Amino acid sequence: MRKLEGIFVPNIVPYTEKNRIHEAELRRIVSWLIDKGVSGIYPNGSMGEFIRLSFEERKEVIRIIADEADGRVPILAGAAEANVEAVLEMCAYCAELGCRAVSITGPYYYQLSQDSIEAYFREIAAQSPIDIVVYNIPAFANEISIPILKRLAMDCPRIVGTKDSSKDMCRFLNLLNEIKPQRPDFSFLIGWEEIMVPALLMGADGGTLSSAGVVPEAIMKIYHETSNGNLNEAKRLQFKLLELFNTMVHGLNFPGGFRIGYEMRGFEPGPPRFPLSDHEKNYLNELRERIACMLEECGFAVTLSKKTASETPTQSSEVIQDIVSKVMDKLN
Amino acid sequence: MRKLEGIFVPNIVPYTEKNRIHEAELRRIVSWLIDKGVSGIYPNGSMGEFIRLSFEERKEVIRIIADEADGRVPILAGAAEANVEAVLEMCAYCAELGCRAVSITGPYYYQLSQDSIEAYFREIAAQSPIDIVVYNIPAFANEISIPILKRLAMDCPRIVGTKDSSKDMCRFLNLLNEIKPQRPDFSFLIGWEEIMVPALLMGADGGTLSSAGVVPEAIMKIYHETSNGNLNEAKRLQFKLLELFNTMVHGLNFPGGFRIGYEMRGFEPGPPRFPLSDHEKNYLNELRERIACMLEECGFAVTLSKKTASETPTQSSEVIQDIVSKVMDKLN
Amino acid sequence: MRKLEGIFVPNIVPYTEKNRIHEAELRRIVSWLIDKGVSGIYPNGSMGEFIRLSFEERKEVIRIIADEADGRVPILAGAAEANVEAVLEMCAYCAELGCRAVSITGPYYYQLSQDSIEAYFREIAAQSPIDIVVYNIPAFANEISIPILKRLAMDCPRIVGTKDSSKDMCRFLNLLNEIKPQRPDFSFLIGWEEIMVPALLMGADGGTLSSAGVVPEAIMKIYHETSNGNLNEAKRLQFKLLELFNTMVHGLNFPGGFRIGYEMRGFEPGPPRFPLSDHEKNYLNELRERIACMLEECGFAVTLSKKTASETPTQSSEVIQDIVSKVMDKLN
Amino acid sequence: MRKLEGIFVPNIVPYTEKNRIHEAELRRIVSWLIDKGVSGIYPNGSMGEFIRLSFEERKEVIRIIADEADGRVPILAGAAEANVEAVLEMCAYCAELGCRAVSITGPYYYQLSQDSIEAYFREIAAQSPIDIVVYNIPAFANEISIPILKRLAMDCPRIVGTKDSSKDMCRFLNLLNEIKPQRPDFSFLIGWEEIMVPALLMGADGGTLSSAGVVPEAIMKIYHETSNGNLNEAKRLQFKLLELFNTMVHGLNFPGGFRIGYEMRGFEPGPPRFPLSDHEKNYLNELRERIACMLEECGFAVTLSKKTASETPTQSSEVIQDIVSKVMDKLN
Repeated sequence: MRKLEGIFVPNIVPYTEKNRIHEAELRRIVSWLIDKGVSGIYPNGSMGEFIRLSFEERKEVIRIIADEADGRVPILAGAAEANVEAVLEMCAYCAELGCRAVSITGPYYYQLSQDSIEAYFREIAAQSPIDIVVYNIPAFANEISIPILKRLAMDCPRIVGTKDSSKDMCRFLNLLNEIKPQRPDFSFLIGWEEIMVPALLMGADGGTLSSAGVVPEAIMKIYHETSNGNLNEAKRLQFKLLELFNTMVHGLNFPGGFRIGYEMRGFEPGPPRFPLSDHEKNYLNELRERIACMLEECGFAVTLSKKTASETPTQSSEVIQDIVSKVMDKLN
Repeated sequence: MRKLEGIFVPNIVPYTEKNRIHEAELRRIVSWLIDKGVSGIYPNGSMGEFIRLSFEERKEVIRIIADEADGRVPILAGAAEANVEAVLEMCAYCAELGCRAVSITGPYYYQLSQDSIEAYFREIAAQSPIDIVVYNIPAFANEISIPILKRLAMDCPRIVGTKDSSKDMCRFLNLLNEIKPQRPDFSFLIGWEEIMVPALLMGADGGTLSSAGVVPEAIMKIYHETSNGNLNEAKRLQFKLLELFNTMVHGLNFPGGFRIGYEMRGFEPGPPRFPLSDHEKNYLNELRERIACMLEECGFAVTLSKKTASETPTQSSEVIQDIVSKVMDKLN
Repeated sequence: MRKLEGIFVPNIVPYTEKNRIHEAELRRIVSWLIDKGVSGIYPNGSMGEFIRLSFEERKEVIRIIADEADGRVPILAGAAEANVEAVLEMCAYCAELGCRAVSITGPYYYQLSQDSIEAYFREIAAQSPIDIVVYNIPAFANEISIPILKRLAMDCPRIVGTKDSSKDMCRFLNLLNEIKPQRPDFSFLIGWEEIMVPALLMGADGGTLSSAGVVPEAIMKIYHETSNGNLNEAKRLQFKLLELFNTMVHGLNFPGGFRIGYEMRGFEPGPPRFPLSDHEKNYLNELRERIACMLEECGFAVTLSKKTASETPTQSSEVIQDIVSKVMDKLN
Repeated sequence: MRKLEGIFVPNIVPYTEKNRIHEAELRRIVSWLIDKGVSGIYPNGSMGEFIRLSFEERKEVIRIIADEADGRVPILAGAAEANVEAVLEMCAYCAELGCRAVSITGPYYYQLSQDSIEAYFREIAAQSPIDIVVYNIPAFANEISIPILKRLAMDCPRIVGTKDSSKDMCRFLNLLNEIKPQRPDFSFLIGWEEIMVPALLMGADGGTLSSAGVVPEAIMKIYHETSNGNLNEAKRLQFKLLELFNTMVHGLNFPGGFRIGYEMRGFEPGPPRFPLSDHEKNYLNELRERIACMLEECGFAVTLSKKTASETPTQSSEVIQDIVSKVMDKLN
């Protein structure tokens, strides 16, 4: 098995008007991403709102993506299910579909001791028919401490890497230092784009970055420039990415801002799975405008999806016209 | 509809050897609790490990309990599902089964803004066919701030109360002060037994207390003594409860310690849904002994379940004999 | 030595126009408080801005208060100095002046391990010529954990009590349960007025409450009603106090709101020791009005200090007139 | 005035047996550091235990260092005093002594709103006779948010840089992105060695790093290698530094571990200003050994100070002999 490397895109799930998985649009997104040269697809992560889908829907998402990718890129699929048995059922399902590996967060909701978290991953790793990436995202789920992750890496061949979305560069460097010399096949994926370039420079093997679904061209360019040692260009792009990322990550509740980003690139994310507040509804058009401006500044064509636009009650064609003209003003 | 009052017991879910819901034992627990005089049953809360069950299992738990209770006591059922649609499906299910109300935590996993949390509860409240209790447990899920909860209480007739497990007496008093004068039918249930007596003294209408499943007699006595103004006896019992509660809540990852408590009262909780760490396994017998001692000191008969005992590999009959003799020594 | 009991008032330090300690006004405050029947005075706490005074100024504050009190009430003086030697110098100084005890916070700035905090208090307790109260205020300084405080209480006769400003009723009850049975002379002072009544009902010996400097009559009434078992009246006053306290504690950066409270009672707090932000300056008059209204509603005469009023550039006599007339309207 | 660049060493304060400032040893340390090629000295930071010294002692430390440096390197002196007036007095003192700039932390102890913190720095910046570095260390003092720091940088010419000890690489990159393009003379100093290399690679102008007092040769080498674009060597050294730093920063309460580091380099830190716990006393020799080993491995001569050694009651000559032989074994 090849080591996990490069950029895995945590895709959104587009919904139909009835809030069901929009298979055609999901396929369109996946194929577009593959055409843009991304290294892999990462369904059922935080971006993919796994927590807001049913167990059956999560399976459906993976099935669609595996079918659409059809071996063109590897798939790293989220498998953070309700209990060990359900996790293993999902692992088996992903293995059958030919996914490259699964990604499993620390357990969420309850606060658990570190040795229990270790026991949890050990039990899964002992029985899983597919490789495992340990996904650390302490803002949403129990943190997996450095000593625990080191022990898991030393003892469990099925655990082949970690995705780190802790925003914590110190942690990431200590992980590299503790594990890499003894386990060179272990994959270190950075899961927070604010530190994408520093992480790659210091030894990351790649990343799973939300923005890669909105600007796959930019993320892939940063990845290649950094790999090729073009530090100045990598730095310039990293700072430019900061602004777009800040806008998308802080504009709405995660992952709402990124869904708008997809919309600006011509996709139809559809209605949200979690209700928007009045504040968010009022902010939507400003956010669309800000993201559109940034994308245009970065050289990306903004193709407002007509359908999504008309579905959104607050966004009349005048509003869109207004946005477009403001964008044009700003660019001129 | 009567106001929610008194002590609702958040029951555990006993499992069979194959880690399926143990219906017979669950029925035995529920009937025992009702016989002990508890005010209601509260399935699918944190104690009931809703997050570790499947959607279908959560329905099964409610169905069994509603059937077993058969109208003898009201049921307050957890309905914190993956999205609004799933929440509403569970609400309808609970309404059909004749539950008194559902309890819904703040959304978990993602960190959400307060106005989004408000939108979430408003949307559910507008469509639910059953009364709703807002369940605040900031250690596990997004906190629902005081201003939001006040607005929901003022605007949404379907929201009839709150369960507060924040451990925060200041918050509880501010809630009482903000909401009670304007909404006297609103129910304030304390969800943390360390402050059971102070909360009741200051105006709580009751509680949903984990310990009530292990020592229903004690909890009901505290409730009645406090209601009757016997402050000295209530205080004495509150401090006694502190020790037992601390042992159960800190002994294992929640709710493991309480499951041992049920075992000490003669029930068979069965294997855990989340793997025990080696540390926890080694600590099990000491914990059993400590809980047994406390129960005996409080006057409760400790009936070690033979089946559970034999199922636990580390607990031979000698060990049990050892525990019993130590308990007897301590009591003599 | 008598056990520490009742309400110790953490006084503000009034400043002159040149931002020096305003001795005459400080004396006037202290005598007024004693006339109102408070149990003791508590200089150099968080309210007294010890951290913003020089070592010499802190000594001056205690000297003035001890002189003005002249044995009429006991003095509990803050002695949280820069290092053990400085703490002991302050302890000796307080002992010479006849103070009843000193209060010492956990060390601030650095994050220290609990066993180092224990070593710190042990070293001070071994050498202090005066009784010590351990002051727990985790929002501002290192927390002193329950096991450490218990060990200190068991081993150090010089440590005679604790002041707890953690807002944490669970902690307070566990402290009472762990220490009181074995050390009945130990004094438990609640340092947060939101839980004044519950704390007293459950066993507190008194409190050090910021509001006691602004409404000593109300705080003493709550204290006496609670002590006398008049639970209904105590509850009514507790909820009333909540509102005034919330206004003062959240209106400006601590302790700014309480300084306005003193002003409304006819004292001249003088210019602040820490610069007000523009936001705070703009909010000052609204805050004055809100506090004045609450005081009037509670039956306290609001005597706007002419001098302070004229010193504040944004508060013309018209504004004051406006406040007074609004207050009168509201009361009529 | 030249922009602040390079490595400023936050020195320890050595104490005499009577716990007074050990002037001769402090001079010896400073001259040794200058001889090693460090860019500047940084007294009265967290490392210099400013919070445990008296106001007069803090002045004395700066006076000694300024005199010893005698213009050979610039001095950046901590000036986080009790209130604005005291800060300004210290600023004037530092200006008179020819210091290059002062460093001021966010206010500590009280939790303050961001606009108040802004007002505080604005008032100081408007009156200071010396350049100011804003020192962000949220673990110990109020954080200074990015928008506030940006506004201060835009509006206050006296504020010429920031020292960031937040461990937060995301923050550091956002600061660079927000301020650097508009204020190219602003200096960004990283204050946490775990991310020294990434910070320098992404645009930091230098650092104030505790380890620079123990291994100035290594820190200066990392600084130069990074500046010269030798990424591989910089990375290798960064990872090596991680281990030494972790040992010193976690071994004892900060800054105890670094004081042992100085001892291993032949200096006499003397008795601590804050009492060691029994646990820390027992760990001292193991820590000495671990630090000595790491230093030897890194090629630094370990010169155990005889005097310090004999002063420490738990460290007999046998123990030292034991350490030395273990170190020798490990090296052979």
